[in-house]
Amino acid sequence: MDSMKIYFAGSIRGGRDDAILYLKIINELKQYGQVLTEHVGDEDLRISGEEDKSDKFIHDRDMDWIFESDVIIAEVTTPSLGVGYEIAMAIQLKKRVICFFNKSKGKSLSAMISGSDYTKIYEYDTFEDIQRSLSEIFLQ
Amino acid sequence: MDSMKIYFAGSIRGGRDDAILYLKIINELKQYGQVLTEHVGDEDLRISGEEDKSDKFIHDRDMDWIFESDVIIAEVTTPSLGVGYEIAMAIQLKKRVICFFNKSKGKSLSAMISGSDYTKIYEYDTFEDIQRSLSEIFLQ
Repeated sequence: MDSMKIYFAGSIRGGRDDAILYLKIINELKQYGQVLTEHVGDEDLRISGEEDKSDKFIHDRDMDWIFESDVIIAEVTTPSLGVGYEIAMAIQLKKRVICFFNKSKGKSLSAMISGSDYTKIYEYDTFEDIQRSLSEIFLQ
Repeated sequence: MDSMKIYFAGSIRGGRDDAILYLKIINELKQYGQVLTEHVGDEDLRISGEEDKSDKFIHDRDMDWIFESDVIIAEVTTPSLGVGYEIAMAIQLKKRVICFFNKSKGKSLSAMISGSDYTKIYEYDTFEDIQRSLSEIFLQ
């Protein structure tokens, strides 16, 4: 059986505050399938993003990856134009969209994300909460 | 002739740092048409957003407004999940999408926004730059 293809979405140019968390989530996701967007968790990836590639290349590659993927897992605590864009495009492609939001940081999640019928939001406090949710999502 | 319907997109829950700028842009846009999203420039609108409405109500109303609109004008300097989502949905609906990005703040615009073939990005330094661009956009 081909392994599940997972598109992980996290903030790059919106801010890299959660880069280490993204890496931990990606490593966790590898238990369940192939993560197409491993670079999002790269601690060396700076806020300027992948500087050796054009924005059009990055955009078109990421759109191809969303098209190919079976599921989108988005970390939505750090506001990000790119993550919002990816979620909307994934919904249009009728992909399963799962969002993780850290409820202990005093932020409010966009109504466009939480108010959609086509996103499933998991609020969490700790990384262990994310681990538990992922095992429910993928092993059910 | 019916007036042009303009959907203005700016950050709400992603951060209200630019709320006064949004108000100025909306006031400027009213010269050219009907702005469907006037509340985005409300200085009293807090980061928690429209607290008297459900997220689903806000999402579905905003989607209806994007559908109705002739053009989307987005201020994309403050990263925002909602603005990214709205831009992607507008592109899917084949709307004209125009983005303003303040290039003097040292931020990097998401590759998903700048790398799309269906967005037009105007970089600016001052509000006068925005005024000049809008008059080019609408009076051409």
